[in-house]
Amino acid sequence: MSKINDNVEKGALLYEGKAKKVFLTSDPGLVIIHYKDDATAFNGVKKGTITDKGKVNNRMTALIFTRLEREGIPTHLVRQLNEREQLCRKVEIVLLEVIGRNVVAGSASKRLGLPEGSEIDEPIYEICYKNDALGDPLINDSHALALKLATREELAQIYAYTDRINRILQKIFLDCGLRLIDFKFEFGRTVDGEIVLADEISPDTCRLWDSETNEKLDKDRFRRDLGGVESAYLEVIRRIEAELGSDNA
Amino acid sequence: MSKINDNVEKGALLYEGKAKKVFLTSDPGLVIIHYKDDATAFNGVKKGTITDKGKVNNRMTALIFTRLEREGIPTHLVRQLNEREQLCRKVEIVLLEVIGRNVVAGSASKRLGLPEGSEIDEPIYEICYKNDALGDPLINDSHALALKLATREELAQIYAYTDRINRILQKIFLDCGLRLIDFKFEFGRTVDGEIVLADEISPDTCRLWDSETNEKLDKDRFRRDLGGVESAYLEVIRRIEAELGSDNA
Repeated sequence: MSKINDNVEKGALLYEGKAKKVFLTSDPGLVIIHYKDDATAFNGVKKGTITDKGKVNNRMTALIFTRLEREGIPTHLVRQLNEREQLCRKVEIVLLEVIGRNVVAGSASKRLGLPEGSEIDEPIYEICYKNDALGDPLINDSHALALKLATREELAQIYAYTDRINRILQKIFLDCGLRLIDFKFEFGRTVDGEIVLADEISPDTCRLWDSETNEKLDKDRFRRDLGGVESAYLEVIRRIEAELGSDNA
Repeated sequence: MSKINDNVEKGALLYEGKAKKVFLTSDPGLVIIHYKDDATAFNGVKKGTITDKGKVNNRMTALIFTRLEREGIPTHLVRQLNEREQLCRKVEIVLLEVIGRNVVAGSASKRLGLPEGSEIDEPIYEICYKNDALGDPLINDSHALALKLATREELAQIYAYTDRINRILQKIFLDCGLRLIDFKFEFGRTVDGEIVLADEISPDTCRLWDSETNEKLDKDRFRRDLGGVESAYLEVIRRIEAELGSDNA
């Protein structure tokens, strides 16, 4: 994260995804990521808007990635620029959604036939092939190798980071009165071939349950029409800001 | 396979599956497995009969398991008894379908978005949760551990056996003019906790393509209504018998 030009200028739109836009900058090694309020679920079938979600997710990701960097986890984050934007290293996204589960919920509940909320002895880690046309299917390591999505060494690095990040996040969230039920990470390759954490960590990408009441404070409120979507996102960022805000992300 | 009482008597029906019946015997450590002509596909949605399939699969499994035992792979087979029956050690079936793929076909083609027949550098190995109600879903090792379907050590043993058996089978089949495209294995636990190969190896459980013409000589002829089902099974056993029949299974 050193040697970053302080006078980066925002350039053309490089890519627009479901929840974020990525802009080129005057530095070919850097991009600006803009967080939108658009929300989708079920592989884009359900669409909507969550007011100020972009601000919450941008801030939360910046705070958490900054803490992770301090803990020795490389990330794509350079720094938060404003309410909706962050400066990031330009990476090639590894076409895997890396999912970690500390408690059974969502698709794992259906797949394994276990009730939502089932405790498990050790975290479950999954990889899905990031491919909208195929519905982001669950795959295993031998599929990832056959598809040449990552090398064997990269997969080992990704699993090692995922497990370390999970343990760091569980502690941070618990200090905020939140249980980290499960999450989705994405990783990127830098120009040097280094694997770094990319994308975001937010209520869009984590299931977070209040540790006292088990109230859902994440995108399941949108997915399942539970109401109180905006207030849940705001409650999460309020707690995270109180916990990590002094880190000066 | 030693010290087997030669005067085992057939007892009550223990279990009837889609393609086989299992009978108790006068020896509590042994069962008799009877191979039926019933054929099912798509998790039981498609049903039919393939004349003499039971004879083909019983004989083929006996010949192959005997050869595998000779190669140091433990199996549940004691010996073939007659055209439709074999004497086997009674095992507790590990609730995993272990799938190996040397060429992309079937569900892997759909899941990975690769054309049927795509070559891969290394075999793909998959495990599915043997659970009809859930549709035998693909899972990974961490799911299997969470569901307590096998221990970490058992999984390692199962993968090691699967890879060894795959390499042995590929050679046997190639000597018969057959390409082993993919297969499904099941393993069992003996009373001593030993992992052994169980179930069957047959055109029901392997995709076998003629190595000259790529003609399908397996259950896909039934699944996909390609015709010539019985003659395909008979052609396979004719070639296997010529290759392995002198082993005296």
